[in-house]
Amino acid sequence: MISIGIDLGGTNIKSAVVDREKGLLSSHSVPTNAAGGPDAVLDRIAEAITSAADDAPEKPLGAGIGAPGIISLDRTTVSHPPNLPGWGVINVNEEIKKRTGFDAIVENDANLMALGSSRYGVGRDLDSMIMLTLGTGVGGGIIYKRELYRGATGGAAEMGHVIIDYNGPESYSSARGDIEAYIGQRFLIRNAIPLIKNHPGNPLAKKFLDKPDELEPVHLSNEADNGNELAIQILADAGRVLGYAIVNYIHILDIRNIIVSGGVAKAGDWILEPARKAALERLMPPFREGFEIRYETLGNDAALLGAGSLAFEFL
Amino acid sequence: MISIGIDLGGTNIKSAVVDREKGLLSSHSVPTNAAGGPDAVLDRIAEAITSAADDAPEKPLGAGIGAPGIISLDRTTVSHPPNLPGWGVINVNEEIKKRTGFDAIVENDANLMALGSSRYGVGRDLDSMIMLTLGTGVGGGIIYKRELYRGATGGAAEMGHVIIDYNGPESYSSARGDIEAYIGQRFLIRNAIPLIKNHPGNPLAKKFLDKPDELEPVHLSNEADNGNELAIQILADAGRVLGYAIVNYIHILDIRNIIVSGGVAKAGDWILEPARKAALERLMPPFREGFEIRYETLGNDAALLGAGSLAFEFL
Repeated sequence: MISIGIDLGGTNIKSAVVDREKGLLSSHSVPTNAAGGPDAVLDRIAEAITSAADDAPEKPLGAGIGAPGIISLDRTTVSHPPNLPGWGVINVNEEIKKRTGFDAIVENDANLMALGSSRYGVGRDLDSMIMLTLGTGVGGGIIYKRELYRGATGGAAEMGHVIIDYNGPESYSSARGDIEAYIGQRFLIRNAIPLIKNHPGNPLAKKFLDKPDELEPVHLSNEADNGNELAIQILADAGRVLGYAIVNYIHILDIRNIIVSGGVAKAGDWILEPARKAALERLMPPFREGFEIRYETLGNDAALLGAGSLAFEFL
Repeated sequence: MISIGIDLGGTNIKSAVVDREKGLLSSHSVPTNAAGGPDAVLDRIAEAITSAADDAPEKPLGAGIGAPGIISLDRTTVSHPPNLPGWGVINVNEEIKKRTGFDAIVENDANLMALGSSRYGVGRDLDSMIMLTLGTGVGGGIIYKRELYRGATGGAAEMGHVIIDYNGPESYSSARGDIEAYIGQRFLIRNAIPLIKNHPGNPLAKKFLDKPDELEPVHLSNEADNGNELAIQILADAGRVLGYAIVNYIHILDIRNIIVSGGVAKAGDWILEPARKAALERLMPPFREGFEIRYETLGNDAALLGAGSLAFEFL
């Protein structure tokens, strides 16, 4: 059985041919050209689907589409996606059916990362798991008893907007002091710059103080690998607060298998080990058993595989 | 259809005859005598069940039992309940069957408050809701699509142990800075005492500074009703932090109907209105629609009705 997986981002539209047994057969990426407006973006998605269908070894049963923004509970409509100007509220399934003849179904992109990990990734053996996408923003998805937990309106798992210090710093959302304000990529870097300024002899200062916009988590983890104590401290502080957010997820959900993905997660154990330690300190004792954090090695392919899975399971 | 509802507490064992259509027919309370050890407590539960069965208009189908502590996923076993010394791990269903001949089923007491509210209380019209029990401790239960959300091992909804300030005060749990450390009854009072000391002319100081152990939330709300600004401020501060915890529940679960019960909730809008306001400020805009906090008027009967419901639905 074959489906098309689509990952609609503000910068690129990624597409994949997904085989239910074998996973990803091929993938492709085109620029979104979001500035062209929603009709142009929908045309591009349609082209990506048609093109992927041409590549497929058999006729796909339809397309699963991961999108940012708010997805309707019936998985047809995408409302006000960030980074897609002028979008408003659009029934993507109708628009894609009209343009391609294929049935389509939409879901939040972070939810599809969770689904892809659950079906094809490091979450394969888990009945329940929490996916955290640690990138520019912090998102997530919850798999409960092998299915996406979606909440009352389909908006569940805004894991980045869980407050860990109500007096804490502003983030891009209204949830001041949320975990995104600490470990969202730009916030992690924003918080690191003053520390780096205080250590002018540090290699990080020499490389990045005149171009702080180029500093990325991978530079911090590379420096940490080199034994740079300042880099180690910055990443450990981020990991520690991530651990407190994880305590909140686990105490509410009683799901103890955490899977991380995204650019910040690439810092690996420099962040994840302090997160484990902080979480274990604050978790109530019964919740410590079975607690673990895994890194999803599929990367963004998890979103494409999740989109393909959505089509297999709901079309 | 008739069942027996039991609420096993550290101080009292409450029992009720529950009619599936009509709700609570009668209820009864006996001291737990927890110091007598688990066998004596189990004997008392058995007596309460037998006695309730004698009162019932027809033979009950069995007993639902709400208990503190950790309940096994199959709802048979209660492990290490607080306030019941020497308990360890006990298969309550077997012990009750042996003693009474009735089938029994156990569940966490706060979960049963949620179930009772969902079936017979102010949550009757809601598909999904979050119950918060604001008492000595802070607990809760999650109803998702008319069923209890239990998590991977049955331990979900530790709503009191959600951290809102990771630098915050100690509570009785390992989750320092959790919402219980602010609005658990003893903590609310603990936090109020220094403020009251600073206002020696305030009626609260005159009444309670020489006996702070007698100060309860109801005294604060009575003073607030009288226009006592200090009491209003203390309750508003507690409500505000409750609002931040509610933001965390809603961002994770996408369940926007909050139901509160318990002694602290009796302070009513002196706490709940600041909670609403704080939550609305920090919730992401899509989550504000449909957000509400209701007060459960059933009180502890919700737990008995939930216990009875559990028997109807799972025995």
